[in-house]
Amino acid sequence: MILTKEIEIFLEEDLRDDDVSCTLVPNKQVNAVIFTKQNCIVSGLEIAAAILDYMNISYAQKKNPGDFANKGEILFELSGDSVAVLRAERLVLNFLSRLCGIATNTHEYVSIVEKSVSDYNKKNQTNLKPPKIAATRKTTPGIRKFEKKAVIDGGGDSHRNNLADLVMIKDNHIEIMGFENAFLEAKKKASFSKKIEMEADLKEQAVLAARLGADIVMLDNMTPAEIRETVALLIENGLRDSVLLEASGGIKKENLADYAASGVDVISLSAVTNDAKWIDISLDIQK
Amino acid sequence: MILTKEIEIFLEEDLRDDDVSCTLVPNKQVNAVIFTKQNCIVSGLEIAAAILDYMNISYAQKKNPGDFANKGEILFELSGDSVAVLRAERLVLNFLSRLCGIATNTHEYVSIVEKSVSDYNKKNQTNLKPPKIAATRKTTPGIRKFEKKAVIDGGGDSHRNNLADLVMIKDNHIEIMGFENAFLEAKKKASFSKKIEMEADLKEQAVLAARLGADIVMLDNMTPAEIRETVALLIENGLRDSVLLEASGGIKKENLADYAASGVDVISLSAVTNDAKWIDISLDIQK
Amino acid sequence: MILTKEIEIFLEEDLRDDDVSCTLVPNKQVNAVIFTKQNCIVSGLEIAAAILDYMNISYAQKKNPGDFANKGEILFELSGDSVAVLRAERLVLNFLSRLCGIATNTHEYVSIVEKSVSDYNKKNQTNLKPPKIAATRKTTPGIRKFEKKAVIDGGGDSHRNNLADLVMIKDNHIEIMGFENAFLEAKKKASFSKKIEMEADLKEQAVLAARLGADIVMLDNMTPAEIRETVALLIENGLRDSVLLEASGGIKKENLADYAASGVDVISLSAVTNDAKWIDISLDIQK
Amino acid sequence: MILTKEIEIFLEEDLRDDDVSCTLVPNKQVNAVIFTKQNCIVSGLEIAAAILDYMNISYAQKKNPGDFANKGEILFELSGDSVAVLRAERLVLNFLSRLCGIATNTHEYVSIVEKSVSDYNKKNQTNLKPPKIAATRKTTPGIRKFEKKAVIDGGGDSHRNNLADLVMIKDNHIEIMGFENAFLEAKKKASFSKKIEMEADLKEQAVLAARLGADIVMLDNMTPAEIRETVALLIENGLRDSVLLEASGGIKKENLADYAASGVDVISLSAVTNDAKWIDISLDIQK
Amino acid sequence: MILTKEIEIFLEEDLRDDDVSCTLVPNKQVNAVIFTKQNCIVSGLEIAAAILDYMNISYAQKKNPGDFANKGEILFELSGDSVAVLRAERLVLNFLSRLCGIATNTHEYVSIVEKSVSDYNKKNQTNLKPPKIAATRKTTPGIRKFEKKAVIDGGGDSHRNNLADLVMIKDNHIEIMGFENAFLEAKKKASFSKKIEMEADLKEQAVLAARLGADIVMLDNMTPAEIRETVALLIENGLRDSVLLEASGGIKKENLADYAASGVDVISLSAVTNDAKWIDISLDIQK
Amino acid sequence: MILTKEIEIFLEEDLRDDDVSCTLVPNKQVNAVIFTKQNCIVSGLEIAAAILDYMNISYAQKKNPGDFANKGEILFELSGDSVAVLRAERLVLNFLSRLCGIATNTHEYVSIVEKSVSDYNKKNQTNLKPPKIAATRKTTPGIRKFEKKAVIDGGGDSHRNNLADLVMIKDNHIEIMGFENAFLEAKKKASFSKKIEMEADLKEQAVLAARLGADIVMLDNMTPAEIRETVALLIENGLRDSVLLEASGGIKKENLADYAASGVDVISLSAVTNDAKWIDISLDIQK
Repeated sequence: MILTKEIEIFLEEDLRDDDVSCTLVPNKQVNAVIFTKQNCIVSGLEIAAAILDYMNISYAQKKNPGDFANKGEILFELSGDSVAVLRAERLVLNFLSRLCGIATNTHEYVSIVEKSVSDYNKKNQTNLKPPKIAATRKTTPGIRKFEKKAVIDGGGDSHRNNLADLVMIKDNHIEIMGFENAFLEAKKKASFSKKIEMEADLKEQAVLAARLGADIVMLDNMTPAEIRETVALLIENGLRDSVLLEASGGIKKENLADYAASGVDVISLSAVTNDAKWIDISLDIQK
Repeated sequence: MILTKEIEIFLEEDLRDDDVSCTLVPNKQVNAVIFTKQNCIVSGLEIAAAILDYMNISYAQKKNPGDFANKGEILFELSGDSVAVLRAERLVLNFLSRLCGIATNTHEYVSIVEKSVSDYNKKNQTNLKPPKIAATRKTTPGIRKFEKKAVIDGGGDSHRNNLADLVMIKDNHIEIMGFENAFLEAKKKASFSKKIEMEADLKEQAVLAARLGADIVMLDNMTPAEIRETVALLIENGLRDSVLLEASGGIKKENLADYAASGVDVISLSAVTNDAKWIDISLDIQK
Repeated sequence: MILTKEIEIFLEEDLRDDDVSCTLVPNKQVNAVIFTKQNCIVSGLEIAAAILDYMNISYAQKKNPGDFANKGEILFELSGDSVAVLRAERLVLNFLSRLCGIATNTHEYVSIVEKSVSDYNKKNQTNLKPPKIAATRKTTPGIRKFEKKAVIDGGGDSHRNNLADLVMIKDNHIEIMGFENAFLEAKKKASFSKKIEMEADLKEQAVLAARLGADIVMLDNMTPAEIRETVALLIENGLRDSVLLEASGGIKKENLADYAASGVDVISLSAVTNDAKWIDISLDIQK
Repeated sequence: MILTKEIEIFLEEDLRDDDVSCTLVPNKQVNAVIFTKQNCIVSGLEIAAAILDYMNISYAQKKNPGDFANKGEILFELSGDSVAVLRAERLVLNFLSRLCGIATNTHEYVSIVEKSVSDYNKKNQTNLKPPKIAATRKTTPGIRKFEKKAVIDGGGDSHRNNLADLVMIKDNHIEIMGFENAFLEAKKKASFSKKIEMEADLKEQAVLAARLGADIVMLDNMTPAEIRETVALLIENGLRDSVLLEASGGIKKENLADYAASGVDVISLSAVTNDAKWIDISLDIQK
Repeated sequence: MILTKEIEIFLEEDLRDDDVSCTLVPNKQVNAVIFTKQNCIVSGLEIAAAILDYMNISYAQKKNPGDFANKGEILFELSGDSVAVLRAERLVLNFLSRLCGIATNTHEYVSIVEKSVSDYNKKNQTNLKPPKIAATRKTTPGIRKFEKKAVIDGGGDSHRNNLADLVMIKDNHIEIMGFENAFLEAKKKASFSKKIEMEADLKEQAVLAARLGADIVMLDNMTPAEIRETVALLIENGLRDSVLLEASGGIKKENLADYAASGVDVISLSAVTNDAKWIDISLDIQK
Repeated sequence: MILTKEIEIFLEEDLRDDDVSCTLVPNKQVNAVIFTKQNCIVSGLEIAAAILDYMNISYAQKKNPGDFANKGEILFELSGDSVAVLRAERLVLNFLSRLCGIATNTHEYVSIVEKSVSDYNKKNQTNLKPPKIAATRKTTPGIRKFEKKAVIDGGGDSHRNNLADLVMIKDNHIEIMGFENAFLEAKKKASFSKKIEMEADLKEQAVLAARLGADIVMLDNMTPAEIRETVALLIENGLRDSVLLEASGGIKKENLADYAASGVDVISLSAVTNDAKWIDISLDIQK
C-alpha cells in the first residue's frame, strides 16, 4: 500500500519549478521499455508501478517480484506522454536499480546458506533446514519499507520493521535492569500479540531466556562452534523447540557458510541491504 | 536547511505507536558518544545534529564535514534522556554510516584523479588541474540532498540537484529536434541564470556545441584518446576556454586514472554514490 | 513519541484564521488547573503534555498514566499566556475526557475478570490467572494509538495496532484457502518476528491450529462451556502450553464474568473502546 | 469536500508496511455488501464513499444521509479487488459505526424534544416550535467535521465548528472585562459577517445582552423555570424577537423534555456526540 | 495562530538544497533592523515574528499591527546567526511588503469613506456612521488569512474567510431555485450560529429578503441613488433595523465617496487587496 | 509539474467543513465558461487545469500560455457537477486573475524595452538586441513558481527561483570578505553546474568581476550613462563577451526606456510581479 503523499515526497526531489530539459521536446505519445542490463532478482515493481500510475503512464508489467531476470529482459513496457516519461524516468530507475540490487544481493546470501546446509545434510545424513537470512534496521532512511520488501523478494526475511514491531531486549537493557528482570518487565509491558526477543552473549543466558519464555533468542557475536554448544545445551534442557534462535554479529559473506549449518533458525546481517550494488537498469524510448 | 517535517518523515519510519523496547529502561539522563569504527571522511553531521535537536538531546560536535576521522574517533558527544537517545540512535547512525560511506568513497575517486594528474604533470612538465569528480542524479530516492552534500564533503561536486537546476540536452532531445535546433530552442526557453549543457557523442558535435554557446559539453562514452582529440580540436578552433568539458559514461575506478589527465574539467560517475559501502559507526552509552 | 505534525492536525481543527473569542481578553500570564469532576483512571497525559508544550504552556503533571483519580483531583497545574491557554483548553480536555473514559471503562472490565477468577479460584481451590482484556481494531479513526494506550493505562492489552502487526487468519481466508493451507501460506510469507493467529470456530480447529504451530488461537463466538471443552481437548493433546487462547465475539459486560474463568489467556472486545463514556474534566483559570 | 490527504491520515493508521493478512488471499474481483445489524439513522456515507473511491472500489450507495435504516438493510454494495476490500473494510466500518451512532443518538434527542413540544402545544393550545438540538465543540479530536455532520444527519444543528466560527463571550471574558464592555469590544473586533453570542447567568444579563445587540444569548445552567422567567422578561422588554436563545449546561436525556417547551430556540449538549453508542455495521464478502 | 507546517511551506520555496550564497559568509552573530522606506500602515507582524522564531532569530518588535509607520521607522530589531538572517530575510520582507501594502491601501479606502460621511453629516446635520470597508474572497491563493488580517489592520473588515463562514445566496442560487425558496432552503440547512446573506438586484428583493429574515442583504451593482431608494423603502416597511446592508459591485476608489453616505453598513470591494502596491521594506545588517 | 498536495493547500483555504452555499443548489451537470473581461496576456492555465482535474471537471482549454486574449475571449469551456464548479470557481479565478495580471504587466515592460531598442537601432544604425526583462525573488509567498511562470508567459525571464539556483555575491558578502576573495570562495564552493553572479557598484568592479570569471555581473543602481561607461570599459578590456550584464536597482516603468539601450543583457525589477493589477476574469454557468 503506497499512498499518494509518499510518491510525492520522492517526485518533488527531482521535479521542481519548470524544468526546461523535459519540456524541450514536443508533447506526444511515446512507447518505451524498462529493461535490465545485468542479471538480477527483480524488486521494486510496486513502487515503480505506483509512480507510473501517478504520472498517468500506461504499462504492462512483464515480471513479478522475486523473479530472476536475464540481462536484456524487459521489466515494464510503457506508453505515455513524452514529458511525463522523461520526468518519471530517473525516479523509477533509481528505485528499481537500488531495490533489484538488494534483492539480488539477498539472493546470493540465501544461496550460500542453502548450499552449505545441503552439503552438510548430504555429508552428515541429516535433515537440517537452512536458516532464514534476515535484514536489520540498518536501512537507508526514508525507504525502509521498500528495502525490506526487496529483502523478501530476494528470499530473505524482513525482520522487524520498526522499534515497536517486536520487543527486543538488548545489552543496554540487560546491563541496567539485570537479565531476568529485564525480561519480566518486558513481558508485563508488551502486548500478548508481540514476540519478545532476548540477546544472549553466553550459552547459559540462552538457556535462561528460553526458560523464562522468550520467543526468540539472539546469539550475539558467537562463533559457529559456540552456537553449536548453545544448541546442544538447549536440547539437553528440553528447550530447543520453544524458541527461535537468531545468529547475529560478525557474520559476513566470507564466513556465512560456517554459520549456515550451526543450528540456528535465522541469520541476520545488515550486509544484505548495505553492501548491495545497484543493478544497471535503463529506459529506452522506442522510435 | 533541514525542516521539521523532513526530520519527521525519517523518524516516523522507526518510531511507531508505543515501543516497549525503548521504554523498558527507566527515564534518566545519560551520556553517550558516537564514534567511527573505521577510518573515514566525515559527512552527515548536519542531519545528525538536526535529529538530535529535534529529540532534545544535547551534543558537542567533534568533527566538521569533510574531516578525516581515524578508527575510534568520536563524532559527537551526547547527553540526554535515555529513552530519547535509544529512539534517535538507529536513525542517526543510519544517516552517518551511509553518508560517511559516500564521502569516503568520493574521496577515493578524488585521490585517484589527483594522483594521476600529479604524475602526469611531473612526467610531462605540464600544469594540468585535476578534473572535478561529480555525482549524478542516480541517488537514493528521498535523501538526494544529503547524498549530494556527502559527495561535496568528500571533495567532489554535486552536479545538478534536480531536473530544473541545469538545462541538459541529451540524446533523446537531439534525436527528435536536431543538434543545433535543440540548443537554440533551449537557449530561448532557459533563464539567463542557468547554464546549458549539451551531450556530444562526436568531437565535431563538441565543437559545434561550443560554437553555439553551450556552457558545458558532455563527452559521452568517449575513450581517453577520443577526449584528447576533442580537446585538441576545440583548442584549434579557439573554443576550449569558453566551455567546461565533462566526461561521462563507462568510467569506473579501474579506468579513472586514464581519464584524469585527458583534459576534461569534470568527470561524472554514479559510482561515487552507488558503490559506496556503509561505514561502521556506533553509539555507546557511557556508564 | 508524538510528532509536531500530529499535534498540528488536531490543533488546526479548532484554531482557524483569527478567532476573536480567544483574543478578546488581554494577553497576560495566567495560572490554571485541569481537574476531574468524576472518579476515573487517568489517561491521555502524553498527548495533553505534548499540546501544552507546543503552545508554550508550562505545567506540572500531578498524576501518572493509569493512576486512579478521585473526583476533584488535579491532573495538571498550568501557567502560561492567557490566549494560549484558551486556545489549548478544548483540545486538551477533549483528549483527556475521551481517553480517561476508555481507561476507566477498561479498568471496569479488568476488575470484573479479576473478581470472577478470584472467586473461582477460591471456590475451586485453583490458581487460574485472570485473562487479559484486549482491545480490537474498532477504534475511532485518527486517534487509534491514543485509544490503544488508554486501554493499556486501564490495565488492558492493546492487541494489534494495525493490519501488519500480527498475522491474523480469519474466516475469509479459511473459506477461500482451506484451514491448513491458509496457515502454511501465512507461515511462509510472514517474518519470523511476527506471531500468527488463527481463528477457530470449532474445538477441532483449535487443536489443528495449535498442532500446525499457530502462536495464538482465537476461539470465535464460543460459549464458556465450549471454550472449556476446547481447553480440555488441547490439554489432552499436549498442546495447551504452546498456544495463547483468545476468546472473542459476543462477549459483553453482562456475560464477561462467565468467560473469565473459562481457561483463555485473552478476552478481546470492542466495547472497551466503543462503549466508553467521556469523563467530565475541566480547566479552571485561577484568579 | 474531503481531500486526499485527509483520507491518507486515516488509512495509514491501519495500513503499514506489508500486511501479510490482507495479501494472503489471491487478488481477484469480489462483491460485497455493507449492512447494518441494528436500526439506525444513517451517517458517514461521504467519508465512506471517499475511502472506497481512493481504494478504487466501485459501489452503489443504497441510502442517503439522515435516512432511517432497518436492521439488515444494506448501505453500500461494493465491487472491487479482494485485497483492496480487506484493506478498506475496517476503516470504512469504524467511520460508519461511530457516525451512525451519533446520528441515531441525536435523532433520539430530537424526538424527545419534538414529542414534548407537541404534547405541550396540545395541552396549552399553543403553537411553539421545538428548539433545535445542537452539538458542542466537545468532539473526538481529528474527526470533528464528520461528527458535526452526523449531528446534522440526525436532525440536529452543528453549532460552531471551530473557535473562529462564531464569537462567543463566556464567563472568563465577562469576569475580566465586565459584561457590557466585553460585548462592545467583541462588536468592534468581529466581522459584520459573524454572529455574537453572550453567556448569561441571570435573566437581567439576558435582557442586557439583547439590548446591546447580541445575536444569540446562551442561558447557562438555568432551570426550565428560570428560562421561562427570562423569556417573559425579554418579551416584556420587546426584545424576544431580536435574539436567539440557547439553553446549555446540565441538560441530559432525563430532563430534556422539561427544557423542550421552555421557550428557547436551541438546546446544546455534548451528550449527542459523547454518549453515542457505536452501531454494529458489517461488511460481507459475497460468495 | 500560525502552525510550524505553514511556515515551512513558505520557507521551502526559497531554501533548497545547499545555498552557497547564504553560507559564503562565516557564521557569526549579527544585529540587523527591518525598517520601512515608505510611510505605511503596519501589518504582517505575526507571520514575520513566527518566521524569525522558527529561524531562532531574537527580535524586539517596535510597532503593533495597524500602527502608522513613517518612512525610516524600524519594525523589528533582530539579533541572530548571520546565515539564518540571510535565509529569513527575503521571506520576511516579502510578507511585510505585501501585507503593509494591503493595510495601507485599505486605510486609504477607509479614510475616503470617513471623510465623505463626515462631510455629509456636517452638510446635512445628520449623524450617519461611516460604513465598513470589507474585503472579498478575491485574495492571493495560499495567503488569504494573512491578507484578511492586513485588511483588518488597515481598519477594514475581513468579510467571510471561506465558503462555509457565512451562507451567501447569490444570483446563481436564485435563478435556479427562486428567490424565496432559496432563502427558505438555506434557513433550513444552515446552523443557527451562522448569518445568511442574500443578494438583491432590485429594491423590492431587498425588502423581501429582510422580511424573510435575512441577516444581511447585498445590494448588487446599484448606484448610490438606487441604494438610497432601497434604504427608504426598507424604512417605510419597518425593516431597516433588522438587516445589515452591503453594497458591492462596480465600486472603485473614484466613486467610493458617492457610496459612502448612501446609507449602507458595509461596502465590499476586491480592490483593497488586489490593487495594493508593495511597500518598500528593507533589512539592514548592522556593522 | 503540480502535485496533489500543492492543489490541496490552496483548496482547503476556501473549502472547509460543509459549506451550505455551495450545496444549496441541486447536484447536476452544468456547462460553464471562463472568460476575460479585459485584454490580457494569458497565464495560469496549468494551475487552473490542475484544479479542474482535481475537482473532476472536464474542460477544453481555448488559449495557450502567453497568448493575447481580447476582452470577452474564452479561456476554458467547462462541464461538470454544479457543486464542484461552484467550489472550484473562486480559486481558479483568483489564480488566473493574478497570473494574467503579471503576464500582462511583464509584457508591457518587454514592449517598452523592445520599442526603445528598435528606435535606438534605427536612429544609430545599430543592431542592439533588446535586454531581457527579469523578475526577482520579491514574489508573493507560497506561489512563487506560478508567478515566475507568469513572467515567462509575459515574455520575461524568471531569474533565479530560489537561493540555491544561482550563486549571487552581494554587497553583504563583499563587505565582509572583500571583492576578490568573496568570488574565489564562491568559485571553490559552487558546483560547476551553476553560474556565479557578482554585484558591482563601480565600473572597475565590473571589470574585475569579469576578469575573475564571473558569469554574470549585476550593475547595481547605476544610471544609464554609468552603464554605458562600464560596457565601454569591458569592451576595452576584451571582457564584454565573457559576461552577461544585468542592470538592477531604481529602474521603473518611467525610466525603463533609458536603460533599454544602455548595453546590458538583462534588466531585473520587482515591479513586474509586484505592481501587476488583477485582470478581471469571470466564470459563467450556461443556462
